[in-house]
Amino acid sequence: MSFVRCLECPKCHSTYTAIEIHNLCQCGSPLLVRYDLERLGKEVKKEDLKGRRADLWRYWEFLPLEKEENIVSLGEGFTPIFTANNLGRELGFKHLYIKDEGLNPTGTFKARGAAVGVSRAKELGIKTIAMPTAGNAGGAWSSYGARAGMEMIIAMPVDAPELAKKECVVSGARTYLVKGLISDAGKIIAQGVKKYGWFDASTLKEPYRIEGKKTMGLEIAEQFNWELPDAVLYPTGGGVGIIGIWKALQELQAIGWIKGPLPKMISVQAEGCSPIVKAFQEGKKESEFYHGAQTIAGGIRVPKALGDFLVLEAVYESGGTAVSVSDDEILVAVKLVARTEGMFICPEGAAAVAGAQKLLASGFLKPDEKVVVLNTGSGLKYPELVELDLPVLEKEAEI
Amino acid sequence: MSFVRCLECPKCHSTYTAIEIHNLCQCGSPLLVRYDLERLGKEVKKEDLKGRRADLWRYWEFLPLEKEENIVSLGEGFTPIFTANNLGRELGFKHLYIKDEGLNPTGTFKARGAAVGVSRAKELGIKTIAMPTAGNAGGAWSSYGARAGMEMIIAMPVDAPELAKKECVVSGARTYLVKGLISDAGKIIAQGVKKYGWFDASTLKEPYRIEGKKTMGLEIAEQFNWELPDAVLYPTGGGVGIIGIWKALQELQAIGWIKGPLPKMISVQAEGCSPIVKAFQEGKKESEFYHGAQTIAGGIRVPKALGDFLVLEAVYESGGTAVSVSDDEILVAVKLVARTEGMFICPEGAAAVAGAQKLLASGFLKPDEKVVVLNTGSGLKYPELVELDLPVLEKEAEI
Repeated sequence: MSFVRCLECPKCHSTYTAIEIHNLCQCGSPLLVRYDLERLGKEVKKEDLKGRRADLWRYWEFLPLEKEENIVSLGEGFTPIFTANNLGRELGFKHLYIKDEGLNPTGTFKARGAAVGVSRAKELGIKTIAMPTAGNAGGAWSSYGARAGMEMIIAMPVDAPELAKKECVVSGARTYLVKGLISDAGKIIAQGVKKYGWFDASTLKEPYRIEGKKTMGLEIAEQFNWELPDAVLYPTGGGVGIIGIWKALQELQAIGWIKGPLPKMISVQAEGCSPIVKAFQEGKKESEFYHGAQTIAGGIRVPKALGDFLVLEAVYESGGTAVSVSDDEILVAVKLVARTEGMFICPEGAAAVAGAQKLLASGFLKPDEKVVVLNTGSGLKYPELVELDLPVLEKEAEI
Repeated sequence: MSFVRCLECPKCHSTYTAIEIHNLCQCGSPLLVRYDLERLGKEVKKEDLKGRRADLWRYWEFLPLEKEENIVSLGEGFTPIFTANNLGRELGFKHLYIKDEGLNPTGTFKARGAAVGVSRAKELGIKTIAMPTAGNAGGAWSSYGARAGMEMIIAMPVDAPELAKKECVVSGARTYLVKGLISDAGKIIAQGVKKYGWFDASTLKEPYRIEGKKTMGLEIAEQFNWELPDAVLYPTGGGVGIIGIWKALQELQAIGWIKGPLPKMISVQAEGCSPIVKAFQEGKKESEFYHGAQTIAGGIRVPKALGDFLVLEAVYESGGTAVSVSDDEILVAVKLVARTEGMFICPEGAAAVAGAQKLLASGFLKPDEKVVVLNTGSGLKYPELVELDLPVLEKEAEI
């Protein structure tokens, strides 16, 4: 059932066959899946989507799986996009939307990459997967790995969110904590990969995770009835989300399902870890390792992303921008969104909200533009964001 | 857009107009929404559902809202039903399914009742809603209330799950903790309702929450392509879920969308709080207040449900049964489901899994029957279920 043509290196343009297991290109770059878009465009029509399953597999022609029986699913994707009119009114936007990735299995957008990554790994006969994680990707991959009957090895910073650790443990993953950042956990995994032959599913070190994330872009297009919004704000850590959305929009443009200008892609980072913002401000094509990275939004605490050049490409090509926000602004945004829209969002999603507010103030975004903010996960995974100080009543008390 | 005929008392059969605000019947019983099913059956076809929005509002003809603009939605419902083959193999079922309500906003099935309850309250002009809760309903109603711009007053046991408390707080609800059970919280709310004129949204004290829960039954029917499974297991606290599913199936039968025998409705409770099981074993139509209620599954720690007679009616009429499981069995089931299927389920859902296992052993369920277990929420809301004892590595360590 696959329309995959090959794997291609976006840097040196080497190609590889997709029926073999690959990680990085020989030049060290991530590999991207390329499809026979001409055939896809001829054989598939937008209207075919109507009535299909309400998860990301509704876009199977844009995904790398050969056989339906290899799908490992927990109900990922096809998350709703809400009009956030109450929040928009507070911030000064007339057409503000939130896409809520918190409704994914395991509570974050990481489920998309894990679903497609694990499914394809199963199809390729892989039995053991290893990866470093800031937390949520580990929880997601452990869950899908368990459902696929695979062995999972996970390493994450010792200060990763407790709930992500518990997701790994409860689903039976071999889980290690590391006194350091995700980059340190990555080194330990890389060593194990070499020693034991595990499959390395680090961010962008395998080509299929991004295909899962790409479906966010397909969904935005379909949910806006193929008339795209003006801007998409994405909190950027490893960057696979923004790279994936951009890839999706380009594929849709290539087959003619969408026309006209694409949305401005906006990368939002935390002030305490903003390598992409720095590179963008300096007009560079790649970022530098960000020393002393620190932010409450652990998912975007990535000092140097392997796909930084792809993130920056999406930002430059789309006429977007990159902006950073403080931890205080993140906390304010979490509370503001909950009070106005009833959505308990994660700090990374709150960073994107705060970024939108900043770019409206700076004039980069206009009040009447259609602006989509990606909330990448549920606030339920970050209980430490909310303090409790509640009145305690006796049984016979009165209010 | 409404097919609502009236509100009807299932006990004394008094009827009330639905365009006014009502709580209980004058006889003290909950009220049920009745529809003009004849007209509905004529005007709506199963095929009309294809391609509709992927949430519970796809069934709007079966719901009590008059105007679409009053919908308060966060993406609730149309949750997936999975084949749980790995788990089935462990337990001895050939056709085991889990419907995962953890993918709802706020992480539990309570979002369904809150979405429909708050939407209808908004439509009726209600500004302030008060309710007691075991925790999760409070989180859900607070979230939907915030999105609707309503004032919410919530009272819950002091030992309710921390995350549910935080959901209430972050979305701006006035939240009180009570040294007692949900029934004690209920007394305090009832007093406030009398004193301040708040709208009382206690379980089954308003007629619309059940309509939201009903959509689980509509979904089971649609997702099984209108060929129903043999049994549905539901963890039972207040009982609105099982009552709602049963109501849905009867409505679908009345309009001819489903035929043949309906599934056996099975109520699962905790050994430490099993009033329905006791009543069923004694062949009674109502339950007695269960003294000393205690279980780790807080959502089913309800000593006496207002709708107990409706739960028992569903169980008796469907040829179902009621069964209780221990807290140890619940904990084992949480881990088993996570390891085999990658789903981190809540203790109430785990109780239903353990109940299925017990009824297979007793011979009530057969290995080749199609059995659906409702997982009513995400395990992410119960972090205390998983203990962490993980190896901590230095940065330069090797695995």
